[in-house]
Formats: sequence, C-alpha cells, structure tokens
Amino acid sequence: MPKIVDHDQRRLELVDATWRIIARRGMEGATMRDIAVEAGFSNGALKPYFPTKDDLLTFAFRHVFNRTNQRIALSTFNQTGTTAIRALGLEVLPVDEEKVSEARIVIPFWQKAITDSHKMAIHRESMAQWRLALMRHLGEARQAGAITTGVPDDVVREQLMNLFLGAQITAALTGPEESLPSYAHQLDGFLANL
Amino acid sequence: MPKIVDHDQRRLELVDATWRIIARRGMEGATMRDIAVEAGFSNGALKPYFPTKDDLLTFAFRHVFNRTNQRIALSTFNQTGTTAIRALGLEVLPVDEEKVSEARIVIPFWQKAITDSHKMAIHRESMAQWRLALMRHLGEARQAGAITTGVPDDVVREQLMNLFLGAQITAALTGPEESLPSYAHQLDGFLANL
Repeated sequence: MPKIVDHDQRRLELVDATWRIIARRGMEGATMRDIAVEAGFSNGALKPYFPTKDDLLTFAFRHVFNRTNQRIALSTFNQTGTTAIRALGLEVLPVDEEKVSEARIVIPFWQKAITDSHKMAIHRESMAQWRLALMRHLGEARQAGAITTGVPDDVVREQLMNLFLGAQITAALTGPEESLPSYAHQLDGFLANL
Repeated sequence: MPKIVDHDQRRLELVDATWRIIARRGMEGATMRDIAVEAGFSNGALKPYFPTKDDLLTFAFRHVFNRTNQRIALSTFNQTGTTAIRALGLEVLPVDEEKVSEARIVIPFWQKAITDSHKMAIHRESMAQWRLALMRHLGEARQAGAITTGVPDDVVREQLMNLFLGAQITAALTGPEESLPSYAHQLDGFLANL
C-alpha cells in the first residue's frame, strides 16, 4: 500500500524549514541541503519541485505574503473605517514573535526584489492590495466622521504604508534590550491624530 | 617624482563604484573584480585595503550613514522644533535620485545586518542618534506650542522613525509608473496632525 503523503502539509513544513534556516544562517548562508535536512527531506528530494534555491525562496516568500493577506481578510471581515485599518495594521505590524520572524524574512526578500522583477511583482501585488483596502477604509472613516484631518487620504494611506514597512526594519534590527513603544500604540496614536 | 594620490578622493570613488555595481547587479552579483574595474583599480589593488568583499561593503555602508548624518548635521544646524524635524526628515527620506540610490543600498545592508552583529551595530548607532535628535526637537516643538497632540513624544518619535525607514522600502521597490504622494507631503502632513 502506498504511503499517504499530504502534499500541502509537506509544502508548509518545507516553507517553515526554509525560514528557520534563513533566520539562523542568513539568506546567503542557507543551502538547499540545510533546508532539505531541516524539513526531513533527503537532499535530492527537493530538486524536482525546486530546481534552484531561488525557486524555493520565491515559493516561500509568496507563502508569507499569502499568509499575511489571509490573516488580513479574516480580521477585517465585516469591519469598516478605523476599526478595519487597525485590524489590517495589526496583521502587518510585527506585534508578536511570529510577525517579527516574518520581518526577518521579508528584508532578504526585498533585497532580492530590487534586482529581480518577478519578486518585485510579488511585492507590488500585495502593496497594491493594501493600498486599495486602506483607501476604502479611510473613505469609510471620513464618512463616519472618525477622521477629520485636512491631510488628503492618499497621503495618510502612504504614511500608514511606510509606518507598516518601516516597522519591519525596526523589529528585525532592534535588540531586546532596547525598549520601544509598541507598534499597536504607534498605530493607535497615529489614528487618534487624524 | 611620485604620482600624487589623493587617498580620500580615491576612497570616495571606490565607494561610488561599489554602489553603482550593486545597483546594477545586486549585492550577490557584484564581484570585487567588477567593483575594482568600475573604480579604475587593477583587480589586485583593492586587496591590501579590503581583504574581502564584505570588508569593502562594510566600509561603503558606513560611508552612506556618515554622509547622511553629515547632511543632517548641516541642515539642522541652529534649527529647533518642527523645523529641525522637517530638515532631518528631508535628509533621510528618499526625496531625490541620490537618496533613492541610498535606499537601494541600505536594503542589502539591512539584510546583512540581520545576521552580522558588526553591521547591526553600525545601523543601531545611527538609529540611536536619530532617536535622540527627534526627541530633543519634539520637546522643543512642544515647548513652542507647535505640537499639542496627546500622543507621547516617544511614540511620535517611533512613528517618524518608521515613516523614514519604510519610505526606503517604498522608494526602492516602487515603479516610476506608480505615482505616490511625495515624501515631503507625507512628512508635512504628519507634523501638521501633531
């Protein structure tokens, strides 16, 4: 009887192993062999699916964006205005250990995207989605009177986008000994000033 | 008569060549040979000063931070409050082509800093400097009545820091066809809401 293999489950394990190895050795230090061993595959077993390390990384990066976007979809479901913006922000901002790990992953991804149009497109796709959602929710917040600032919505949207993106850098490159105001406070303070 | 060599000038040319090659080929694609040729050195001439590519990159990265901090020192000289914050922000934000290039350079640097404590320290040193300056200027702005928000200064400082850092990602990974509100508008709008 053939062994039953849950392919989706195996893919997830592979993605997680990829991040663990990258977190430990850095993007350049991580080898396909390390990743295969960490995920419990034999060295050659990955090749048919991911001929190069870059293919595996692209798959794994896409997975992080998908996971974030699924979390956003769930937590903003039926929400509008500043409540929805807050919910979206708290899925993107590095407010817990899982999301700090994602920050450590997305920076190597951005570095590659600068000179790789395929990765650049993966990044831009999610950014376009977030921008659309933020604009819609800013409009709702305006209509509800929760936002009265004279600063136009597209400028506020970009401030939020850059706050979200910059927080990834801060989270990945700040030591545990530096005590900074929480990202939730930063977001709440930002929304309170609008 | 020995050829007179301006060593500082040669170092600057080398740093610039390093960035041009990285901008063109990416961090991993850039070789010591490419960089030497671009700067007009023979291949072996760099070795005595920079035994490895990593040594050269660390030197070049430090130079970008120094250059930014010198610009900040000049443009905030004798300035206080929101005027000083605006001046600092406009030196860090990618408001012109030179600073967009710096954004493309700092992302590979951050990626390396995640797993390299020496590079991490270079980054943190500048961040600590910016945080101190922002706190001082926020205090001045408060005293002058230019800022009246109920959001505490350390939270506002972090919002500014993340706005500055996130803008580097946006500038490096946004296409010329995407028209976004300018970083100066974002900063002015942010300060106006405080």
